Formats: sequence, structure tokens, C-alpha cells
Amino acid sequence: MFEEIMHHVEEMEPLVHCITNYVTVNDCANAILAVHGSPIMADEEEEVEDITSICSALVINVGTLNKRTIASMIRAGKKANALKHPVILDPVGVGASRLRTETVLQLLQQVKFQVIRGNISEIKAIQEKGGLTKGVDACSKDIATYQDSEEGIQLAREVCQQTGASVVITGACDYIVDATSVYVIRNGHAMMARITGTGCMLSAIMGAYVGANVDHITQACACAVACMGYSGELAYQRMTCEGGGTGTLRSYILDALSTMQPKRLQGGLKIEVR
Amino acid sequence: MFEEIMHHVEEMEPLVHCITNYVTVNDCANAILAVHGSPIMADEEEEVEDITSICSALVINVGTLNKRTIASMIRAGKKANALKHPVILDPVGVGASRLRTETVLQLLQQVKFQVIRGNISEIKAIQEKGGLTKGVDACSKDIATYQDSEEGIQLAREVCQQTGASVVITGACDYIVDATSVYVIRNGHAMMARITGTGCMLSAIMGAYVGANVDHITQACACAVACMGYSGELAYQRMTCEGGGTGTLRSYILDALSTMQPKRLQGGLKIEVR
Amino acid sequence: MFEEIMHHVEEMEPLVHCITNYVTVNDCANAILAVHGSPIMADEEEEVEDITSICSALVINVGTLNKRTIASMIRAGKKANALKHPVILDPVGVGASRLRTETVLQLLQQVKFQVIRGNISEIKAIQEKGGLTKGVDACSKDIATYQDSEEGIQLAREVCQQTGASVVITGACDYIVDATSVYVIRNGHAMMARITGTGCMLSAIMGAYVGANVDHITQACACAVACMGYSGELAYQRMTCEGGGTGTLRSYILDALSTMQPKRLQGGLKIEVR
Repeated sequence: MFEEIMHHVEEMEPLVHCITNYVTVNDCANAILAVHGSPIMADEEEEVEDITSICSALVINVGTLNKRTIASMIRAGKKANALKHPVILDPVGVGASRLRTETVLQLLQQVKFQVIRGNISEIKAIQEKGGLTKGVDACSKDIATYQDSEEGIQLAREVCQQTGASVVITGACDYIVDATSVYVIRNGHAMMARITGTGCMLSAIMGAYVGANVDHITQACACAVACMGYSGELAYQRMTCEGGGTGTLRSYILDALSTMQPKRLQGGLKIEVR
Repeated sequence: MFEEIMHHVEEMEPLVHCITNYVTVNDCANAILAVHGSPIMADEEEEVEDITSICSALVINVGTLNKRTIASMIRAGKKANALKHPVILDPVGVGASRLRTETVLQLLQQVKFQVIRGNISEIKAIQEKGGLTKGVDACSKDIATYQDSEEGIQLAREVCQQTGASVVITGACDYIVDATSVYVIRNGHAMMARITGTGCMLSAIMGAYVGANVDHITQACACAVACMGYSGELAYQRMTCEGGGTGTLRSYILDALSTMQPKRLQGGLKIEVR
Repeated sequence: MFEEIMHHVEEMEPLVHCITNYVTVNDCANAILAVHGSPIMADEEEEVEDITSICSALVINVGTLNKRTIASMIRAGKKANALKHPVILDPVGVGASRLRTETVLQLLQQVKFQVIRGNISEIKAIQEKGGLTKGVDACSKDIATYQDSEEGIQLAREVCQQTGASVVITGACDYIVDATSVYVIRNGHAMMARITGTGCMLSAIMGAYVGANVDHITQACACAVACMGYSGELAYQRMTCEGGGTGTLRSYILDALSTMQPKRLQGGLKIEVR
């Protein structure tokens, strides 16, 4: 079902502008390249408008916020809006500090996002315009309440209504929701949480999928989620066969992403479209 | 002998706040996750107090110092002190520039550290309140003088007396020293020095071990040193079998860290407790 | 033909000061270590003079520019010039924004570079004192015009005349050019472009090769290009055998770099000296 979406990325090789954290930035760049996009990381206020102008999508990730880059995020976001480039928000750790919460709320006020992707606690913090998260991972209480339930879909829909964005909540079960459609994806493996950056990488490749499929944003997001999740499963299987651990798992996820084909994905998809 | 220490980390999954360099930050995050901790990197002055408050330990690494983050280090350190969270210092390259030396001395004045971990030249630079290091690696002269000798232990003890911290000197032979106890560990492999970040990763996982074992800080440090060293040995053996090099070695260290079990460690430990 | 060049690096273990981007900085450090150099990353204005003074070469990479580090680049460059340390410029994405173009032109005015390495579009942007690049990758139009042709060599020679630097243009076919000599190298594999940082890593290891061979700068650059290219080929072959993707390719490039021997390189060299 994602054949065309994937084909467009391979054909267009969209340039994706990322303003992202320095923890997982290398993985994000490699993930974008793996799916046939072309990454460019630039966060200096003076150049972000120039850079985002030559790109097909903008990904804003607040993982390691600092004041210098907040201004860059807003400026790049406004420029991308003006050029009608899709803008993706990854609100890493929103709720973990006042600065993160205020920055995310400020971004949501000043920039129109086409996609917001986070874990359950992050999306809940956005819905509540605040709230508390346990660092950068989802709280177990939130997981218990929202995971694989109508409540999770309802939460995504509310944030979609608040923001106008397609909302992606990732966890053991992923929701991709807009005003009219719901995808529930159950690909992925729990071990992915023991590597840093699988969430950031997903947001990054969404930039490539959405940038090459501007008329099918929610479907493109679902495709990115499925590719990432199924790559994680394949990587986990391969790692287990070889007796590896999280170091090789990380490499194998990129391997699987970079060799994913529509037919292969189709064979492994665990998706429900509502 | 480290069974309980390791068990506590797995049980608690301590959140570890790192203010660290951008060279090895990804490896540090993955190392913390590998040992069942949960990393959060945050270095903006305005948010470090919030972030460190929700964490169990703080790791300060001066590998790529800049003025913006020096203020953050001090502020986070003071907050962690106030909350009685253990604070670990990795004085990367102290002695290689006046800025690094002055910053480390300033940190030692304003923040109480529970653990200081460095190579021989770095610990010597702290003891001498200055001194010269060859970049970020230990000087061969210092290695010749202090490696695997009473002088090394004596040096660690002096810095322990100066600072009140448990002092960890790593090299071919590692010392973990406090006022009353000395561990000498001879795990590890020389090839680990040909990968960037094995020292930074060690300091990072110390955050997890110490954060989950606040009443046994020196022992927790020794456990972290042993886990890292033995992981390096296992990774080296596996790499050699497969005809690899430093790229796979790096992945295999994380593999070994992420699959380390108390019994396995016990079987490979080269430790002397004095 | 590169036996002595490589031998000098292994013998001297030159310390290389890098002011570089945060996307590929870890790969750069690991690449320098792989070829027996010793990396130190430092970009705070106050310490760059101290750091560069203890090093054998300075590598300036503008991949993620910001105003704080521009000043550091100039100050470090001037100090390295005064000490007669070789300075390498990697003008990542010059032409993609006014800030990058202006910064690169400013660097070329204020610092004397011994080596400039970029893709065809970047070198052309320098020659034209501006121009347009497609983000951080070469434009297909530029590739069509200059790749594997006398025009490419001519372009390198012009930039060499403008700047006094040895000029290295990398792509499917690499040119290493100074006032009197031309090396054309056809090692490498197209798949290397699907990993971030192979260009940055090459510039980084040039720091080690040039730093240990200050009297043979152009030849040292050619050696670095050949090592990197042939490592890419070997990594690609190994990856293909094992059914991997870009994740393992990345590790295997470091593996090949870290185990490269003069004789092995000699056996795989595709070089033309004009």
C-alpha cells in the first residue's frame, strides 16, 4: 500500500533541512540517506532561511534545546510555512523542563506544523499545554492509560484538532491520525527503546517521506512509521541470530532501512486502517 | 561481587543527566541505555536545574567546552549537590588549554563531586592544579611513572583527599580509590584507545551505576570500570575472530555492555581489592 | 608509492585539531584514530590557540556553521599559520547559504590554507567566489561538466592558483592538484555517498597525513584519498557478501581504514599521476 509513497522518495531524493539535537544528529542524517533522502543540518539563525528554501521539508527536533537555536527554529519554520514546505515537529522531552514546554508551545503558536510526532507522554504534554514527562521516555502511567486503546487515538485526534497537524504517537503500538483517517501500526520491537535516537530517526525520515509526498502527508507518515518499525524487527531478528546487542542492532536498523523495498515492507506490515 | 550493584541499575533504570561533549555524546547515551539506565542530555543554562532534578545522577564532561555550557555545568552541579544527587566529573583534556584547566578548577571549587574519572595525565593535572597534557590522551611520561604502581594509587588518594571524591584513574591498569578502599582492575584491551569515547562512555555509565547505588559509590565505580573493561576484551576477541577493525569494535563494545550479566562479569574479572 | 607517507603517520601519531560540524564529528575522530592519528575537537574561541599549538595540523570544516565558531576558526587558523602547521579547509555546503559563502571567503582571506577539499560544486563555488550548491552534495550539472575530465583538473588548478593550496576535488573520480602535480584517483564506491560524513572523514584524516608529512603535502593528500577510497571499496565488498546495508558499511569503512597497510593499498590503488 506504500509503494507509490516510497517510489516518490527514491525518485525525488528530497533535501531535508533538520534543526535537531546533537545526540542523534548523525543517526538522523544516516537514516535520511538510507531512505534515499538528502539531509542538511543547519541551525544558525542567519542561514536557516536560505537553507530551508532549497529543501523539500523541515524537521524541528528540540532534543538539546538552546536559546541560539530556538530563534533559528522559529525563523526556519516561518520561512518553510511561507514556501508551503511541510514542517515536522519532534517535541523531545516536552514537559521535562519549563524551557522545553514553553519552547514547544511557542513553536506551535508561531509555526504551522504539518506533522507532530512524539511518544505518548510528549503528545499528552502538548494536549495539556504543559504536563510532566519522565525525561525523554514515556511515563509508564501514560503507557498504561493510552497504549493500544481508543484513548490513544482520541488523544492524537485532539492534538490534531488543536494544531491542524497530522499527529503520530509512537510506542509499542503507533497511531497516525489526522482529521479523517487513523492508521494503527504494530511493527517494531521493544529493544529499539534501548538505542538512542530511533524516535529522532523516525521524525527525520518523515521529512523525506512527507517532502516527496506533500499531497499525502498522513499516509507518508504512516509509511515512515512502518518502514522504521519493520526495520527494527528485521534488525532485531538478525542481531539475535548473531548473538549481538544494542551496538549491532543500531547498525542493522540502518541496514534494513537502506535496503527496504515496498514488497518486503508489504510482507511484514502490521497495519490497521480505520 | 558486583551482582547487587548491577541488579540495582537494572531495577531502577536511573535517569542520568549528562552535560557532555558533542564528539562522543551519542556513544554516551547508547552506553547508558546499554546498562539499563536512561540518558538525558541537556546543557542550556535555563533548563539544567529542572532536568537534573528529575534525574538520579549528573555527569559533567568538559570534552568540548564552551562558555555557554560552563555556566550550565556549575548551575546543574550546584542543584544536584543540593538534592544530594551524585555528580561525576570527567575532566577531558584538562591541562591542554588554560580554559580547560581554569574551568575544571572552577568546577571543583563550586561543585562537590562524588566521583572524578580521568586518565593519568588528567588526574595529575588536577592534583597539580594545572600541569600539561598531550591533548586528550595520557602522556607517555606519566604512563611510565604512574601506570601499575603504588605511585598511581598515591596520586588518586591525594586527589581524593583534595576533593572528597572517589577518584578513578583509567589506563592499561585502572585504580578506583577513596579514603578507605582501593580497587585495581586490569580488564580492558589496548585497542580500546583507538576508538574515541571509551573514557567518556565509562564516565557516562558511572552515572547510572552510582545513581542506582548512592550508598556504595566507590564500589559502583569499580563495577562500571569492570563492565566497560571486560566488554572491551570481549569485543576485541569477537572483532579479531571476524577480521574486523575499530568500526566493528565500537559496535561490539556496546553489544557486550548491553548483554553483560553479573555471572559473566564475575568469570572475566581481573580485580584486586586492597 | 605511499609507504613512507603512511609510515610517518603511524610513527608520529600526529595530534590533529578539528573545528568541525556536530553531524559527523564522531566519525571524524574515529577516522583519525583509525589511521593512527590522535584527534582533539575544540571550538571555543578562548582555547583554540592553546589547542592548535600542541597539534600537528588543523582541520576546519564549516558543515554546521555558527557565529561562535566562525571566530574560533579564524583565530585557530591564524595561530596555525604563525606556527607553520598545515591547515585544511572543508567548505561543506559553500554556496548553499550566504553565510556559508561569506564565511568561506572570509576564511580564505584571513587564513592561509595548505589544503582545500570539497566536492565539485563546492570547489566551483570557491572559484566563482559564490555560486550555488544543492545543499551539501554536488549538483548533477556540475558532475556532468567536470567529472573525470580535463575541466575538473583545470578547475582545481585555478583554485590552487587563487589560494596557494593543494586542491582536492572528490567524487566518482578524485583530483589532487597543486602547482606542479596532478593525481587522479578512481578508488571508492558510489554507495559511500549514502553515508553521511565520508567527505568529512577524508578531510579529517588528511589532517593526520599532512601533519605527519609537512614536506609532501599534496602526496599526503593523495594518500589519504586513496586510503579512504579503497577502504570504501573493501567495505562495500564485505557488506555485500554479508547482505548488509549502509549501517554496516559505515562500520566497515572504519574497519578497513584502521587495518589498511601500505602493501594492501598498493594492491588496490587506481591512480594516475600526471
